[in-house]
Amino acid sequence: MRIGIFDSGVGGLTVLAAIRARLPGADLLYLGDTARVPYGGRGAKTVKQYALECAQWLVDQGCDHLVIACNTASAYGAEAVRTACSPLPVTGVVLAGAASAAAAAHSKGPILVLATRGTVSSQAYLRALNETLPGRQIRQRACPLFVPLVEEGWPPGVVLDGVIDHYLSDLLQPTPAALILGCTHYPVLKDHLAARLPEGLAIIDSSEAVAQSLYRMYPDARSGAGRTRLCFTDDPEASRAAIQTIYPAGLHGADQIQLA
Amino acid sequence: MRIGIFDSGVGGLTVLAAIRARLPGADLLYLGDTARVPYGGRGAKTVKQYALECAQWLVDQGCDHLVIACNTASAYGAEAVRTACSPLPVTGVVLAGAASAAAAAHSKGPILVLATRGTVSSQAYLRALNETLPGRQIRQRACPLFVPLVEEGWPPGVVLDGVIDHYLSDLLQPTPAALILGCTHYPVLKDHLAARLPEGLAIIDSSEAVAQSLYRMYPDARSGAGRTRLCFTDDPEASRAAIQTIYPAGLHGADQIQLA
Repeated sequence: MRIGIFDSGVGGLTVLAAIRARLPGADLLYLGDTARVPYGGRGAKTVKQYALECAQWLVDQGCDHLVIACNTASAYGAEAVRTACSPLPVTGVVLAGAASAAAAAHSKGPILVLATRGTVSSQAYLRALNETLPGRQIRQRACPLFVPLVEEGWPPGVVLDGVIDHYLSDLLQPTPAALILGCTHYPVLKDHLAARLPEGLAIIDSSEAVAQSLYRMYPDARSGAGRTRLCFTDDPEASRAAIQTIYPAGLHGADQIQLA
Repeated sequence: MRIGIFDSGVGGLTVLAAIRARLPGADLLYLGDTARVPYGGRGAKTVKQYALECAQWLVDQGCDHLVIACNTASAYGAEAVRTACSPLPVTGVVLAGAASAAAAAHSKGPILVLATRGTVSSQAYLRALNETLPGRQIRQRACPLFVPLVEEGWPPGVVLDGVIDHYLSDLLQPTPAALILGCTHYPVLKDHLAARLPEGLAIIDSSEAVAQSLYRMYPDARSGAGRTRLCFTDDPEASRAAIQTIYPAGLHGADQIQLA
């Protein structure tokens, strides 16, 4: 069993790590489109085309299941990828995250979604949550500074607190029921975010949600010693610092590949 | 006379605006590679290839002079573009900025260069300054948070001050002679930077340096009513907010094009 995971860059390594922890027996092939990262600010058609190219490459490598680790690619491209790669199963972070939020939202408060500009504009979380939690108030916020803060490994302090407060302060009344981290980089900030948010607020990490869903689907892969291979469309050296911050094991044996 | 200006995205619009102010009679064609922006964190070979593709497109549109407005593209791709497009004149922001810094550095202090990770790694400013100011100490610093701060139009406050201090505080002793803004977005922060820096420090805006150089070359274009056309590789709507912040006039009639 070989699971193909693709992302716009290195952020999806959080999804890879979560799947690896749950399914040690699966072969995992990761594709990061670092030559064109980030997808978050691009137009819908462009993101959909990039997602299809990444998916096709993973299919050509013999993957049995595709995971769209990038929220923006999942928002704009999941349907197109599902159609193009049918009957292969395709798991996107958006639906997995929305399902987790619905399960974790114990109060009647709004659901907050923090994401890139692209994911917010796509309204994909809005549509998914309207199905899992009909009638619930959803409040979205684009947080473009979070990604460079994570990739640079910024220390706690006035800048990090100031950026978090800038994005979140007007979203905390009425008290929200859950907050979805709608970008693969954001889980790295989870503890800092939790410290600035009301106690008891459920924080949804979509990478965990995806891993749980795969865990249920593939009981045979819950043990064993599967292989992990990382591929990037740009020279992995150019992303060395960011890979080191997010997934330290990933630097060894990473390859550069070219999409058709 | 048609000048072709290319950049990784919208930041080069500061260069377009500076040229337009000096040469009202020139036709200006701007190409922003917004489908693949930013170049700043990518590998050398990838940036060089992207720069060649952008340059070729402008040549195909009949441009008589090419301006590489992106510092990273200028750092990694200027030589390749000059060779490929010979005998067309090619002006890159790096050499223009280094020449301006040499002219403005009245003290013996070090020259500071603020830029993207890619431009810093390329050492292009280091090489250029070693020629214009032999033996002078050069200190470079990558400032990845500056671009999203500019594109989001962040207000003055603790975050902006904290980010500037984080990047600059250990570069101010001994007192520098000049500071080069080695990324097209950074001039938008010029006043904030000046307020946190020693008085009298020369701040070099490479877009101004390029415009001055072209002004000297094309006296016939110093008056007249040239046309301006903007093209982007992604949907211009996806960059609407950033274009609005940097070059408000640019939104009208911007086209999406496809590179070969």
